[in-house]
Amino acid sequence: MTKSFGSDNHAGTHPAVMRAIIDANTGDAVAYGADGWTERATAELRRLSGADGEVYLVFNGSGANLLGLGLLLGRHEAVICAESAHINTDECGAAERILGTKLLAVPAPGGKLTPELIASRLGGRGDEHFSQPGVVAITQATELGTCYTVAELRKIHDFCAANGLRVFIDGARLANAAAHLGCTLAELAEHADVLSFGGTKNGAMGVEAVIVMRAADAVNAPYLRKQQLQLSSKMRFLAAQFIALLEDDLWLKNARHANAMAARLAAGLAGMPGVQVVHPVESDAVFATLDPGHIAELQREWIFHVWDETTSVVRWMTAFDTQESDVDAFLSGIAAVTGSISV
Amino acid sequence: MTKSFGSDNHAGTHPAVMRAIIDANTGDAVAYGADGWTERATAELRRLSGADGEVYLVFNGSGANLLGLGLLLGRHEAVICAESAHINTDECGAAERILGTKLLAVPAPGGKLTPELIASRLGGRGDEHFSQPGVVAITQATELGTCYTVAELRKIHDFCAANGLRVFIDGARLANAAAHLGCTLAELAEHADVLSFGGTKNGAMGVEAVIVMRAADAVNAPYLRKQQLQLSSKMRFLAAQFIALLEDDLWLKNARHANAMAARLAAGLAGMPGVQVVHPVESDAVFATLDPGHIAELQREWIFHVWDETTSVVRWMTAFDTQESDVDAFLSGIAAVTGSISV
Amino acid sequence: MTKSFGSDNHAGTHPAVMRAIIDANTGDAVAYGADGWTERATAELRRLSGADGEVYLVFNGSGANLLGLGLLLGRHEAVICAESAHINTDECGAAERILGTKLLAVPAPGGKLTPELIASRLGGRGDEHFSQPGVVAITQATELGTCYTVAELRKIHDFCAANGLRVFIDGARLANAAAHLGCTLAELAEHADVLSFGGTKNGAMGVEAVIVMRAADAVNAPYLRKQQLQLSSKMRFLAAQFIALLEDDLWLKNARHANAMAARLAAGLAGMPGVQVVHPVESDAVFATLDPGHIAELQREWIFHVWDETTSVVRWMTAFDTQESDVDAFLSGIAAVTGSISV
Amino acid sequence: MTKSFGSDNHAGTHPAVMRAIIDANTGDAVAYGADGWTERATAELRRLSGADGEVYLVFNGSGANLLGLGLLLGRHEAVICAESAHINTDECGAAERILGTKLLAVPAPGGKLTPELIASRLGGRGDEHFSQPGVVAITQATELGTCYTVAELRKIHDFCAANGLRVFIDGARLANAAAHLGCTLAELAEHADVLSFGGTKNGAMGVEAVIVMRAADAVNAPYLRKQQLQLSSKMRFLAAQFIALLEDDLWLKNARHANAMAARLAAGLAGMPGVQVVHPVESDAVFATLDPGHIAELQREWIFHVWDETTSVVRWMTAFDTQESDVDAFLSGIAAVTGSISV
Repeated sequence: MTKSFGSDNHAGTHPAVMRAIIDANTGDAVAYGADGWTERATAELRRLSGADGEVYLVFNGSGANLLGLGLLLGRHEAVICAESAHINTDECGAAERILGTKLLAVPAPGGKLTPELIASRLGGRGDEHFSQPGVVAITQATELGTCYTVAELRKIHDFCAANGLRVFIDGARLANAAAHLGCTLAELAEHADVLSFGGTKNGAMGVEAVIVMRAADAVNAPYLRKQQLQLSSKMRFLAAQFIALLEDDLWLKNARHANAMAARLAAGLAGMPGVQVVHPVESDAVFATLDPGHIAELQREWIFHVWDETTSVVRWMTAFDTQESDVDAFLSGIAAVTGSISV
Repeated sequence: MTKSFGSDNHAGTHPAVMRAIIDANTGDAVAYGADGWTERATAELRRLSGADGEVYLVFNGSGANLLGLGLLLGRHEAVICAESAHINTDECGAAERILGTKLLAVPAPGGKLTPELIASRLGGRGDEHFSQPGVVAITQATELGTCYTVAELRKIHDFCAANGLRVFIDGARLANAAAHLGCTLAELAEHADVLSFGGTKNGAMGVEAVIVMRAADAVNAPYLRKQQLQLSSKMRFLAAQFIALLEDDLWLKNARHANAMAARLAAGLAGMPGVQVVHPVESDAVFATLDPGHIAELQREWIFHVWDETTSVVRWMTAFDTQESDVDAFLSGIAAVTGSISV
Repeated sequence: MTKSFGSDNHAGTHPAVMRAIIDANTGDAVAYGADGWTERATAELRRLSGADGEVYLVFNGSGANLLGLGLLLGRHEAVICAESAHINTDECGAAERILGTKLLAVPAPGGKLTPELIASRLGGRGDEHFSQPGVVAITQATELGTCYTVAELRKIHDFCAANGLRVFIDGARLANAAAHLGCTLAELAEHADVLSFGGTKNGAMGVEAVIVMRAADAVNAPYLRKQQLQLSSKMRFLAAQFIALLEDDLWLKNARHANAMAARLAAGLAGMPGVQVVHPVESDAVFATLDPGHIAELQREWIFHVWDETTSVVRWMTAFDTQESDVDAFLSGIAAVTGSISV
Repeated sequence: MTKSFGSDNHAGTHPAVMRAIIDANTGDAVAYGADGWTERATAELRRLSGADGEVYLVFNGSGANLLGLGLLLGRHEAVICAESAHINTDECGAAERILGTKLLAVPAPGGKLTPELIASRLGGRGDEHFSQPGVVAITQATELGTCYTVAELRKIHDFCAANGLRVFIDGARLANAAAHLGCTLAELAEHADVLSFGGTKNGAMGVEAVIVMRAADAVNAPYLRKQQLQLSSKMRFLAAQFIALLEDDLWLKNARHANAMAARLAAGLAGMPGVQVVHPVESDAVFATLDPGHIAELQREWIFHVWDETTSVVRWMTAFDTQESDVDAFLSGIAAVTGSISV
């Protein structure tokens, strides 16, 4: 089978992660996280992120997002986010249903919020008829494959702090952002109140971490995690995955590799007249437009998603296990279909 | 370390389950369940349970319970359950918080509801001031280690059908019940509208199935599973676990073994004057009373939970990997502490 | 004090409504609606709307909207509405919080949805990652003072029926729409599954009706009304208000009068160079732009709301008790401020 | 028609309240509470209760309860209440549905909680599997017509303060309690964090006040009131009702009168062999047992509720407008039916 460019979660489990899972399968362990693996994984995540608070492992990205938002939101408060945010477009309305919150979505070029865009949704604060934003949710890397620079994060964080807003970072692809920016996790985390750090798209079998930067914000987290159905009984098998990813910076290597493969893909597209890359390639995703007929033809052999049918935008994603040869073969396929080069 | 008698989820992953997970880690697979493993696991679960509807894999027991209940409950409806039900006592109020439903809990001897007990909570139907029960939730095996007979299930199901109530079975330990009763899954499932079938306590790493008996009840299930944060992206690794458990009836062997170990434990306790078994031992749990001082002494060496401090009831659980020698060593320990025999 | 042009709920209670309330204060009446006044009011509302279902009286407009939507929405479903809809902009996120639903808001010129606009939010149906619209909510008359024609309603209703969508009409100003269109309530109601019919803005002290067109949709209504905190104990005092409004078509006379006053205001503005009416005046509201400085000056003497500060749009509303002389005085005030005429 | 003994909300509106409503109907008033009537009513309620916080007027008792609880509860927290509490038995599960909270109901003799009963539901605090109580809800006067003494309230309040629990008082009949105890509202209110003060059962047409004792707890109240559908547009008509009730202590006179009528009824029952009063008569309710056949016969002429069919307990309620002659006629009726005296 050809390598999927459909999603970074089409990939399997990194061998080192699998090895750690197997190694954790030794006899009994107390359930629900009172085990050594969990202690080790969460301690290391706290260290890497510079968090004074706590770290909670959960099953998936939506679970991480809703735990993080739930910790920061007052019962009546709303969330400002980019229109393209995963919580707004890809979670079947889970935020509204589970947290009862309204998402104040802002059209955001490249998927990135700015203080100005955030400010545009602050009308009506203090007026009981209007939704009251309490949290700004940003995605790093964004759903469109772009990254906030550290300076951009700082500006948002400062604006939020000055305006009584908390900051949540959906970090399902935080590793890819750190790899792109060449910064530490802590340099990203310090601009959030709570953030998620995704393992699943980075080579894990299925685990995400919710990092609460300050202890005061973590007080209710165990209960919210339980109520929101994210407490694993055999937690050691979640923790072991992060242990593997954090050892020798495997998370960073995986992310760098996936990013490099996306960059290679983008570079290869540069000379093709029938394909137009539409967002800066700053993580493991390439968004491009091409002729609808070409899309259909290409999908006969390759797996990927059409992002927007009306504008003929496709999304091509790489992963920790995408090979240079996969990219090159895909490029040849694209070229053949678009007639860019003879094959 | 001595074997834990604290919970069947203190055990690790059964080797065959681990093998299946490893085997599933072969290259790419489409995410969210559109893969061959999931197709195979759910087809087999449908066959075994005799379901005409669909099967949905989820992360954990609370996730399974709330998906099952969510499918059957009208927006305003309440749930009748035993006071000892997991949804009532062990899920931090998740049912109320996530489904907005009221649990009409009934004190139920041995953890088992009866038509009479259910009828006791039907007052006020049709009166808008009263909570309106729409679902009866039963647990099989119960939280107290007992099992409903098939005849008892039938009586409850018939009563519910006659009274406009739907039936949900929390089957976190359904395997243990089938093993105890010597019946098929289908013989249990036919008395439910929706049921869960637990993998985690049966040797899985972490997976539960929600079985919807009739297709009409499954229409909204994909959306509820997603909203309720139970949709796994790399689903094949959940499915592989069930594939292993279902192969050659491993689920049944595991359950039979765990039950046998509990029976061995109970048999060994029979002659000890200081220990009183308080519920019929019909699955993998033994509930007993002993002197509070003896409990404390025993807990210095052995892991188990005090179920009720006020009545000095403890819960001792076995698992698929409990050995006869573990049981015998534990019995010796109990005997030594209670002074039943010299050691 | 000068007459307020701020809102039709700045007005008090119509004398006939007050008289009916007083008349209802005769000794005891069984609580919660089992009284003759409620029977009479709801029967008359059923008759006027042509409903085969039931009618429920509630306290306020948000209460009516959420009861109506709650009856039509599946637990996981979303609502398609105009961006300007009251549920989206003026209810503090109540729909998300109380119903857990996502509002799929569409920018709608003049506040009016069309089949095409509705269709634009139907992407992703059947895909568990996307919010699943179940109800289309339209407002008649709209928040911008415009009205759907009966033909437009029919087109929306037909489109919805063909696409498995239910229709809710927020009729807080349904009377104004009927008055403008010269049609019966039934001609409007037949294009909805559930609709509200507002009393409060029509001269009541505070009461709204939720009209369920078909009995099958009303089954859960009493329980939802109670849970959603909209069940009045001394219901006769709500019912009496509708009895007064329905007698001799007072509701229609009030609406016609308020509409006429808005039309008079709009007519008077026609010749003023500094004021631009920005929406068709089809109910009791006039939206206009004028110079920000003029707005501020005018607000020193007159009460009204700035609708959009960025575009200098104001909203001027009339009510059942607005007098021609009030309008004329206000017109003079506007003219004086804008320098349109010397005063 | 004979006077109803069914409920204190079978009574109509006190003439002074109706007069105040009529008087408030003078031209325009700004909506949603920014009017002089609301300012006056809430200021007076703050003064009477000794609150440093704020007062919010709402439509009904359930609305008041859920606003009060919503202000005090963390997102994940549970409520300890008496099994007989209105929120537990008479609101169709609104607390669970609207607040997502679990009610930890305690069987409470006479409807009254004690520190010991509260302590019985504190097991599992700090354990994520268990519901975490955050608020103790007490009812004053209770659903069973009894009253907490001020000393009892103080003990509960002190216990709660020492145990990190907030106190909410459901004061739908707070006036009756103050009248019975001969204490001020402030003496009751000082033992709550938030309390409701009921107007409806005291002679109002329909209004309740939510009194937040400390300003810090009131910060979110306007938004919760709006979201929970309790914000009245023509608020002056709610406020006017309280203005009338507070003038010359009408609320206290009404409550004293209703209590006196209940006491008269209880006194008259004292000598009747076939009737047994089962709770202390400390407000406007008399609970009694009598022969089921006698109940049925009595209900042919008189309106009242059977409280518990299994134990043949009935509830007889008086109101502000119950006359001595009504009580005496009812006593004669009871006597005739029970054969206590010849008639």
